[in-house]
Amino acid sequence: MRILSGVQSSGRLHIGNYYGAIRQFIQLQSEGEALYFIADLHALTTVRDPAKAREFTREAALAYLSLGLDPSRAILFRQSDVREVTELYWILGTVVPHANLERAHSYKDKTAKGISADFGLFAYPVLMAADILLYSADAVPVGKDQVQHIEFARDWAVKFNLTYVPGYDPADPEGKEKGHAPGILKLPEARLQENTATVMGIDGQKMSKSYNNTIDLFGDEKEIKKRFMSIKSDSTPVEAPKPTEGSALYDLMKVMLPPAEFAAADATWRAGGKGYGEYKKLLLEAFHATFGPARQRREELLKDPAELERILQDGARRAREKAAPLMEQVRRAVGIS
Amino acid sequence: MRILSGVQSSGRLHIGNYYGAIRQFIQLQSEGEALYFIADLHALTTVRDPAKAREFTREAALAYLSLGLDPSRAILFRQSDVREVTELYWILGTVVPHANLERAHSYKDKTAKGISADFGLFAYPVLMAADILLYSADAVPVGKDQVQHIEFARDWAVKFNLTYVPGYDPADPEGKEKGHAPGILKLPEARLQENTATVMGIDGQKMSKSYNNTIDLFGDEKEIKKRFMSIKSDSTPVEAPKPTEGSALYDLMKVMLPPAEFAAADATWRAGGKGYGEYKKLLLEAFHATFGPARQRREELLKDPAELERILQDGARRAREKAAPLMEQVRRAVGIS
Repeated sequence: MRILSGVQSSGRLHIGNYYGAIRQFIQLQSEGEALYFIADLHALTTVRDPAKAREFTREAALAYLSLGLDPSRAILFRQSDVREVTELYWILGTVVPHANLERAHSYKDKTAKGISADFGLFAYPVLMAADILLYSADAVPVGKDQVQHIEFARDWAVKFNLTYVPGYDPADPEGKEKGHAPGILKLPEARLQENTATVMGIDGQKMSKSYNNTIDLFGDEKEIKKRFMSIKSDSTPVEAPKPTEGSALYDLMKVMLPPAEFAAADATWRAGGKGYGEYKKLLLEAFHATFGPARQRREELLKDPAELERILQDGARRAREKAAPLMEQVRRAVGIS
Repeated sequence: MRILSGVQSSGRLHIGNYYGAIRQFIQLQSEGEALYFIADLHALTTVRDPAKAREFTREAALAYLSLGLDPSRAILFRQSDVREVTELYWILGTVVPHANLERAHSYKDKTAKGISADFGLFAYPVLMAADILLYSADAVPVGKDQVQHIEFARDWAVKFNLTYVPGYDPADPEGKEKGHAPGILKLPEARLQENTATVMGIDGQKMSKSYNNTIDLFGDEKEIKKRFMSIKSDSTPVEAPKPTEGSALYDLMKVMLPPAEFAAADATWRAGGKGYGEYKKLLLEAFHATFGPARQRREELLKDPAELERILQDGARRAREKAAPLMEQVRRAVGIS
């Protein structure tokens, strides 16, 4: 089972990113052969600053490695380091119906907001399909809003195979029956991520960089303490039971505390007798218990950029080893060099 | 001066192709550093048969080499052999306004004819711009219908430079004035091809494969003779002056005969006294005088596919040498690996 995850980064990561996606992504490395590509080519559709682009890529790599991605097992690489992906992007594009892209969510959503669209944004799903198909991924973990991308990748893989593989039958894509040929491009399955949490920010809204209500995974220690201490609370007296609905503090405890600890906190929360400050301290401790080791690993990796680069290059080499034979098949099938 | 020519092939080439484009293209090799790419990636938007795709590429290479392209001077290569081109195609695409492509002739013409458009057709001008910009071409020979492609390439090069080159000023693209930086992508000039002839087919319509009225450059000798002999003529008696307007025979003589020979033929044509058959023989002789050596060279090359492959690989190597440093600049500018 080969699982491909696309890693997008927009710089500093917060605990919302972790509990909402990263944790689940990293767990996949134990389920099979896992590939993680940092989507630096996709990022160019929004990031127009080279220093930022490089920083985002580095931050994503540092975060995943610090948080437990094991590069001796999983393959972590920069999308742009495997050049075959843009080649497949062109070739695949020649069988993609233009109309499909006009109804792609990623494009419709942005243009509906009046954002003047560049070709790159329009073409985004084709590059994404090339990413997936290039590595013959069996499964791709996605959120609900990305299921369409996997459906496109499947449709276009079928179209490519029908066009270029004599004897291909979409009803038998692996070519198991007599007279049928297996497809060159493998149909990926969307793996809808469950067990993901939407995390509240310190102001009680959804945690998001754009609301400036985040607690960063790798932020400065003092700043993090300040953030936990300023989690929005109400004026319920110390001795009174606390409201659970709409409480950012309660919500964060539910996400961050180990089950037994949460059960204890939940009991006193409902009974009353403890002030909000004590729960904030509990959360801060949980944060350091959970992310302390990762924060330290990150510090070590930060001191050794050559090692980080070595890991990424090694990942790229291993990813290319998987991509190269597939591309050779694709080239032969369409009749180029 | 670096000149880049895109070579499209749809298989068998006829004398209309030669006098309408190939002759002028090949002459460019004496005007500067000339690169000729066989557009096998573009061809995938219409050719869906790998054997045909390979045949078209081979035919184009054989034709250009036979007709005088000197591979020790000019660079002849397959587009798909320089992988950097699809990488630039993606990166450039992130700054291309989507609306530009909607008004591209190549796309509008086909969709107006009710051809259901694939993404590749829509994206065609972006790949073409990448072809041109990747080699920092000074000039690109084009027909009138392709001027728009060069304008797009220029516009997008400016947009890329403005986005990614600090100090770039479109009014000073070479960065000659103080405080200005030269662009990374060089603005190409369209070189409108003149001295091109529209050649009449044997039925008096424009020579075109789709009318089945061609005389092939490298066709079978008997078939070629038959074609010349069946050039449409009227019932003007031998002794009478012949009409020049709308005569395919007269038109072909004008294109194919050397000036002195044409002058002599023109005189008898207008005076009368010779039958059409004699002019047809004259044309056939001119055909063999002009294309005989090329036809022979092609036979020799056909016998030595390894040599043809060596030439194309050598061309690809030299083209890559020009593309690689530019791509390195581009990657650094946008902030990828």
